[in-house]
Amino acid sequence: MSDPPPGAFDGHAHVYPLRVYYEDTDAAGIVYYANYLRFAERARTEMMRSLGLNHSGMMAEEGVVFAVRHCTADFLAPARLDDWLEVVTRITGLRGASLGMEQWVRRDGADLVRMSLKLACMTLAGRPSRIPATLRAHLEEFRNRNDP
Amino acid sequence: MSDPPPGAFDGHAHVYPLRVYYEDTDAAGIVYYANYLRFAERARTEMMRSLGLNHSGMMAEEGVVFAVRHCTADFLAPARLDDWLEVVTRITGLRGASLGMEQWVRRDGADLVRMSLKLACMTLAGRPSRIPATLRAHLEEFRNRNDP
Amino acid sequence: MSDPPPGAFDGHAHVYPLRVYYEDTDAAGIVYYANYLRFAERARTEMMRSLGLNHSGMMAEEGVVFAVRHCTADFLAPARLDDWLEVVTRITGLRGASLGMEQWVRRDGADLVRMSLKLACMTLAGRPSRIPATLRAHLEEFRNRNDP
Amino acid sequence: MSDPPPGAFDGHAHVYPLRVYYEDTDAAGIVYYANYLRFAERARTEMMRSLGLNHSGMMAEEGVVFAVRHCTADFLAPARLDDWLEVVTRITGLRGASLGMEQWVRRDGADLVRMSLKLACMTLAGRPSRIPATLRAHLEEFRNRNDP
Repeated sequence: MSDPPPGAFDGHAHVYPLRVYYEDTDAAGIVYYANYLRFAERARTEMMRSLGLNHSGMMAEEGVVFAVRHCTADFLAPARLDDWLEVVTRITGLRGASLGMEQWVRRDGADLVRMSLKLACMTLAGRPSRIPATLRAHLEEFRNRNDP
Repeated sequence: MSDPPPGAFDGHAHVYPLRVYYEDTDAAGIVYYANYLRFAERARTEMMRSLGLNHSGMMAEEGVVFAVRHCTADFLAPARLDDWLEVVTRITGLRGASLGMEQWVRRDGADLVRMSLKLACMTLAGRPSRIPATLRAHLEEFRNRNDP
Repeated sequence: MSDPPPGAFDGHAHVYPLRVYYEDTDAAGIVYYANYLRFAERARTEMMRSLGLNHSGMMAEEGVVFAVRHCTADFLAPARLDDWLEVVTRITGLRGASLGMEQWVRRDGADLVRMSLKLACMTLAGRPSRIPATLRAHLEEFRNRNDP
Repeated sequence: MSDPPPGAFDGHAHVYPLRVYYEDTDAAGIVYYANYLRFAERARTEMMRSLGLNHSGMMAEEGVVFAVRHCTADFLAPARLDDWLEVVTRITGLRGASLGMEQWVRRDGADLVRMSLKLACMTLAGRPSRIPATLRAHLEEFRNRNDP
């Protein structure tokens, strides 16, 4: 496939672009609040892929998944149909078995939603697991490159 | 849990009630078209449960799932926020490895969406499978009770 | 329609029951994290309806909607396909133009997700609005009945 | 925004690429069947945008939306987490007030889902409407370029 992967590191953080489609909106004419969490997960997936990590590979080779344990979201302003948004993703903490992240959804440079998340590394059976060394190395490298 | 399962056989077909929430609607103020397929799948699940069949049990004990192979949908009139809908489900065909169904979404007796589906019985590895005998007996009993 | 509305006040809080369907789960075999926010919104809608308030009516008669401004979620344990869950909803704060709520998703009495939310009353044009007096009276009555 | 819009005309049809994320999959490990209709709608939106047409603009300037009236889908093979898919879109019919389309979801050149749709042009009040002349000209131009 010749298309570039969506999203890229912009020198400060990973930036993932997306369009707002009908499926994302609700009868109030704005993006439904839970859907920002879907946008954020797409962005985390592409951030990981930009480091050479994908979910299927992590499951098959390392036997782990990352699960969101804690999430805080501030909804500052609504996005609307046809908007072109960016989700900005940074790693703010890296511990033995968990990961801290900050993510923003912005439009034309203005923040619409600000999120803070804690993700735990889990075995496929659902038990907490240390982050495998190869994963950790990639995540550390990203954290060191992104803004603190 | 003391709540009754949602939906019941009404003497002609299985009838599953549901409310339209914000998540189901879009910026056009109506239920997003793909969401009727979600409603229909909820109704099929409860129809199966009313026969004593549930997905987890079928996977664990029989090693099979039902996958939608073909679906036709006619969207006659839109549902809206706060509507109380019913999904009507009938089995119209039962073959060795597949199942034909008709489903309607209606509001106050008027049909909004009419669907016709073919589901295939599959192993967990994704291969076609004959419908196990115990499942078949339950499905046949339902088909014989519902309107032709 | 003769079906009772889903959910009821149990003497301490509003309790809304729901089944986990395929649409709610993901390839990790568990309920996708953003979907708990959909469940919570369904429960808030039914809590409001149990007070005689519905979205369409509030929009048409009072010209307001409630928008989630802030949300914190702790994901303690995963829900799975076919689970029968309850969403518990309480009002924890009621101010001039906003509402504080706590919501839990639980299965067999064990909490799976704990959420805390702040909702703002908005005009249809998206401006902050005081909560209209009739709405406020209903919400206050509920807050006084539910556990502090 | 410097990112190119997703999707492009490839000389035969409009081709829209997308990644499969967790939100798109279900507990059977595959893309949930209703989500292909979401993918198809994203692709139709970008096909329209590539002609200079967007939903917000059509609503504001022409007072119309396109609503799916009829949809047939054949699910040939499942897509999975992390898959990179393409949705191919062609206009197969253009009448006074409606539009026929064919859409495929494919992976590495193999078709996974084939859809056939009829969309009706509607006023914002939900009444059938002739397709406005400027819209029609764009759609005709696309139909004449895409494979019959």
